[in-house]
Amino acid sequence: PLVAWLRDSTVLEIVDELTRLDPEDTAVAFRLLPRDRALDVFEALEPVDQQQVLDGLRADRVRSLIEALDPDDRARLFDEMPAKVVNRLLAQLSPDERALTTVLLGYPEQSAGRLMSPEFVSLRASMTAAEAIDKIRHEGLDAETVYALPVLDDHRHLIGILGLRALVLAPPSARVGELMTTDIHQVTTDVDQEVAARLVREAGLIALPVVDSEARLVGVITVDDALRVLEDEETEDFALAGGASPLRTTYLAASALGVARVRALWLLLLIVAAALTVNVLQIFESTLDEVVTLALFIPLVTGTGGNSGAQASTAVIRAMAIGEVRLGDLPRIVWREARVGLLLGLMLSAAAAVPVSLLYGGDIGLVIMFTLILVCTWATTAGSALPLFARRAGVDPAVVSAPLITTLVDASGLVIYFVVAKLVLSL
Amino acid sequence: PLVAWLRDSTVLEIVDELTRLDPEDTAVAFRLLPRDRALDVFEALEPVDQQQVLDGLRADRVRSLIEALDPDDRARLFDEMPAKVVNRLLAQLSPDERALTTVLLGYPEQSAGRLMSPEFVSLRASMTAAEAIDKIRHEGLDAETVYALPVLDDHRHLIGILGLRALVLAPPSARVGELMTTDIHQVTTDVDQEVAARLVREAGLIALPVVDSEARLVGVITVDDALRVLEDEETEDFALAGGASPLRTTYLAASALGVARVRALWLLLLIVAAALTVNVLQIFESTLDEVVTLALFIPLVTGTGGNSGAQASTAVIRAMAIGEVRLGDLPRIVWREARVGLLLGLMLSAAAAVPVSLLYGGDIGLVIMFTLILVCTWATTAGSALPLFARRAGVDPAVVSAPLITTLVDASGLVIYFVVAKLVLSL
Ligand SMILES: [Mg+2]
Ligand SMILES: [Mg+2]
Ligand SMILES: [Mg+2]
Ligand SMILES: [Mg+2]
Ligand SMILES: [Mg+2]
Ligand SMILES: [Mg+2]
Ligand SMILES: [Mg+2]
Ligand SMILES: [Mg+2]
Ligand SMILES: [Mg+2]
Ligand SMILES: [Mg+2]
Ligand SMILES: [Mg+2]
Ligand SMILES: [Mg+2]
Ligand SMILES: [Mg+2]
Repeated sequence: PLVAWLRDSTVLEIVDELTRLDPEDTAVAFRLLPRDRALDVFEALEPVDQQQVLDGLRADRVRSLIEALDPDDRARLFDEMPAKVVNRLLAQLSPDERALTTVLLGYPEQSAGRLMSPEFVSLRASMTAAEAIDKIRHEGLDAETVYALPVLDDHRHLIGILGLRALVLAPPSARVGELMTTDIHQVTTDVDQEVAARLVREAGLIALPVVDSEARLVGVITVDDALRVLEDEETEDFALAGGASPLRTTYLAASALGVARVRALWLLLLIVAAALTVNVLQIFESTLDEVVTLALFIPLVTGTGGNSGAQASTAVIRAMAIGEVRLGDLPRIVWREARVGLLLGLMLSAAAAVPVSLLYGGDIGLVIMFTLILVCTWATTAGSALPLFARRAGVDPAVVSAPLITTLVDASGLVIYFVVAKLVLSL
Repeated sequence: PLVAWLRDSTVLEIVDELTRLDPEDTAVAFRLLPRDRALDVFEALEPVDQQQVLDGLRADRVRSLIEALDPDDRARLFDEMPAKVVNRLLAQLSPDERALTTVLLGYPEQSAGRLMSPEFVSLRASMTAAEAIDKIRHEGLDAETVYALPVLDDHRHLIGILGLRALVLAPPSARVGELMTTDIHQVTTDVDQEVAARLVREAGLIALPVVDSEARLVGVITVDDALRVLEDEETEDFALAGGASPLRTTYLAASALGVARVRALWLLLLIVAAALTVNVLQIFESTLDEVVTLALFIPLVTGTGGNSGAQASTAVIRAMAIGEVRLGDLPRIVWREARVGLLLGLMLSAAAAVPVSLLYGGDIGLVIMFTLILVCTWATTAGSALPLFARRAGVDPAVVSAPLITTLVDASGLVIYFVVAKLVLSL
């Protein structure tokens, strides 16, 4: 039944099950796949799972799988392997594939050059549609895509893009130069993969041309790879938003120790920042001693500040990540967030006024009301400004995560709380 | 110079500037665009910005822009407009376009049916490659894509997919039935748009066929639209992760009141949950009165619990969102997260032991050490389990956000803290 299941399921269904097996079983199940499906399944696996499969295969099978991969997929797998293994596998490749792969590996990690496919079909403006289709028939099998065809001049500079649809619909004698569009996008090999992938999304491209430092076309980034990068980058942003470094593997494949490792540093950093709250409270210890009731509201005050700060920073970080907001927008954004914080603070203090005053007296009620207004306004202002400052400082705004904002606002929120308390209660 | 700039910039650059102008100026600048670029720019705008443009245009210009939109883009814009306006615009459409649009608007919001394009070119297995290309030449101009061609049987059921590349490379007499792939994916019209878009990403598709309840093909979802949906869905998940509802507009276009509105309910809910912490502290008020030093560590204890809980829940929510983790994985994940929490708690308590003991005495040091271990273990366990329970209950796991976990862990962390304190200090 397993063999029949492996034959009749889609590649995605098989991948889904394979990644849930114990590492040893993954390779066993993989060996049961019909030969013609094995490559498709292997290509659809994440590198961490590809390695598990390779660990359980004979050397010649490993060699043929690696040889059959596209250069970009091969480079991605090699990225995750020890240099020694990579060198051995490189040596076993055919000269052509080895050359393509070493070129890609020569570009920095997470760059457009690493991500692109060096196999593409390019056209010339002077070609007729019939000649172009003829060229695709000869070279199109190896290319990563033929749906967006770069048109080059004599210097291999990009002058236009022609979709295969326009080519197929055109009369055979039409010139490529007249059919192509010149509303084109391109990136250089050293551009960050996320910037390139975002451009694919924003412009709705099937393939994004990649050029070298002399503006010569050297590859194309296809939409499927851009999608994958965007997924990875967003997973990274989510990890940071949750106050952790990203895992280098899938969540399912990670070990407890591996998971703890990406979180430990952040937790330590946050607890050191939290030590600040201990100091703040110590400064106000006599106030606290006088009115112990004030202690009851400490988590509520810090929690509310943290929550409104997290709301603001998350919104700004995301808007920057999708390119909606840039540095120049800082003043209008911070000004708007300050007003948002004031509105929210007024609302919360209105909601808290009656119950707190009834249960703990009007004085405490007043303290909580003023504190909530000030803390919310301060938290949204700081929460929205910090990610923008981070970008100005060249730091990934996603690093200014909700937990970081929360912890910073905790300490400053307490200062606000006790200063308000001393003033209102005239301590 | 503005007119020259509008002529020479890419569509994306123009869109980027237009969305930064004041609402009235957006329409003014749009009117300066050369006619042939105006539609491309309009198509690339978000619905909120499209509406601003339309507000400043004459009725006949509005009519012709709306008429020129693809049905799926038109349905998306209409989604955001008042019903009255939509009905007026629908009445002005040509009969063909009106029919296509009303079909789409008949499907539920955020469904695959709403997202798909009803204009596609389908093939028959018995066709030759030459016949297929001929059909594309006749029908391909209106279709949203011709790069992934659905192959249908007599009942309009999907039996395969043929890429335009394979078709162009094939000999003219080859049969579509032999060229097509049968490793196919499809969704029904009522499937959530996010599920459909994720399938496009996972399977690396150019177009995903959409079928009705009788499995007849009614449209295709193209990769550019899937990318946009994934961006929206991830923006939604980020908003929830930050403890807010998603905005229905772009962050830049939203008003202070609009931003406050999507956050207010969550903040209120969280402050009500935080009221729990006040109750917990009140229960332990006598303990607090006896050892005021304990109050100093309240934000540190709740903060650390919140942070480790947020780390765990964010990781699980994201792994579920990208389809890595499903309900059946609950036991192994919660078990792993419990061990991760224990590891992290041990690390933090080791780090805190010496400074706390030196400054506040060995007893307080012991209390903090035990508390951190227990709170971290509890927080990661609860933080990882809750999103999975949410999904079982049919709730979007993203709703179980970091702020919610943080607030819940705040109260339970305090209970742990004071119970440990009472035991260690024998109060
Ligand atoms: Mg490939
Ligand atoms: Mg190849
Ligand atoms: Mg690729
Ligand atoms: Mg990033
Ligand atoms: Mg990155
Ligand atoms: Mg966008
Ligand atoms: Mg379109
Ligand atoms: Mg049309
Ligand atoms: Mg579309
Ligand atoms: Mg969602
Ligand atoms: Mg949704
Ligand atoms: Mg907190
Ligand atoms: Mg994936």
